[in-house]
Amino acid sequence: MKVDICFSPALYPFYADGNNYIAVVVDIFRATTTMCAALKNGAKCIIPVASIEEAQAYKAKGYLVGAERNVKRCDFADFGNSPFDYTKDKIEGKEVVFTTTNGTQAIDAADNADILTIGAFSNISALTDFCVRKQKDVIVLCAGWNNRFNIEDTLFGGALAARLIDRGYTSASDATRTALSMWREARRDTRGYINRTEHIKRLEANNLQDSVEYCLTEDTVNLVPVYDKETKKIN
Amino acid sequence: MKVDICFSPALYPFYADGNNYIAVVVDIFRATTTMCAALKNGAKCIIPVASIEEAQAYKAKGYLVGAERNVKRCDFADFGNSPFDYTKDKIEGKEVVFTTTNGTQAIDAADNADILTIGAFSNISALTDFCVRKQKDVIVLCAGWNNRFNIEDTLFGGALAARLIDRGYTSASDATRTALSMWREARRDTRGYINRTEHIKRLEANNLQDSVEYCLTEDTVNLVPVYDKETKKIN
Repeated sequence: MKVDICFSPALYPFYADGNNYIAVVVDIFRATTTMCAALKNGAKCIIPVASIEEAQAYKAKGYLVGAERNVKRCDFADFGNSPFDYTKDKIEGKEVVFTTTNGTQAIDAADNADILTIGAFSNISALTDFCVRKQKDVIVLCAGWNNRFNIEDTLFGGALAARLIDRGYTSASDATRTALSMWREARRDTRGYINRTEHIKRLEANNLQDSVEYCLTEDTVNLVPVYDKETKKIN
Repeated sequence: MKVDICFSPALYPFYADGNNYIAVVVDIFRATTTMCAALKNGAKCIIPVASIEEAQAYKAKGYLVGAERNVKRCDFADFGNSPFDYTKDKIEGKEVVFTTTNGTQAIDAADNADILTIGAFSNISALTDFCVRKQKDVIVLCAGWNNRFNIEDTLFGGALAARLIDRGYTSASDATRTALSMWREARRDTRGYINRTEHIKRLEANNLQDSVEYCLTEDTVNLVPVYDKETKKIN
């Protein structure tokens, strides 16, 4: 089996060959980390939607809604894009509608994959085991930022690829090799490495850096969110 | 001034903001290295075309034509995509039509830039001086492989960015930071680093590795090819 890494939703058509693989959508800061946290805290499921309008329509019907654009919570929404927003007392047993600048669009891009999962440092061990058990090729789809390359999602791709390669996978591409090399450089001081990224500046400018440490911590969540193509829900 | 690096022609719209910058199109193996070599050897100009059909039409009119797809020379063409094909005796004073798998498509993608140049390790010093003289932002557009990320073009982006930053530019993005970090790792043994790439395997499988060393050698060409938007020629 092979592991490949696609740096942007806009590049996904050039990485997806057929559909017999697991797509792992990743948006470390913060959409996919937040989805993992919400499901861990007992949300019944997440309903990802790409547009603000869809999210508002759900809100009008009484759903709980998480909505973020350009790192900020949308005014009409119950939650923003911080994993700390989705506490057990607020979401246990509830369906949560979710839209973010980049993460939910990436899910849309990859929904032809045989299996579409949500990845984050928080569930990396569970995700590794899941992929190995399924014995399928893996494509990590980095959400990026407005289709631009970003370091944090790529770094996660490298970390997951390193684990999969330890379990018998091979590197599929120059992109995977580059992500592996970044991960080797960053792993001893991930926070320091991440300090040099574009997105940290965006979070800091909006006083939203409180979850950075959590978003980079491995294995706080022992589950693998999977997108159900029929119901269009993640659980 | 800023230097940014775009990893694929498909991502270019997300990197190009306005048009007040220098685009540097790069396809190290081998289109842009070959264009630099052809102009050094006295070609009057290069006429880049995106499709085989256009190249064939020029051939029918009596033009010299270089044409490559998937590393191989097209049957109808005078030359393939090796810099060694374009010798002084064959091309001096002549207009050369040129189409390749990735390089000429990248030129098409970036033709809204204020100045569109052709970059390669072979003209890196001349190109650095050119950019500094123009005092404009720079976007390196990596041709990639069928819109996929590749290491060799990114490495060139890192090498050019390092030189520009030494001359007062700043890094624009996570992509630039990553390319700089790759270049720092690779610069002492570029050939060894490149040995791990996808494209070396393609070249070796077709016995075309003879020009790899040349394509990685700095400063064998002291000129900067510029695309003229009115005539659609490079000279």
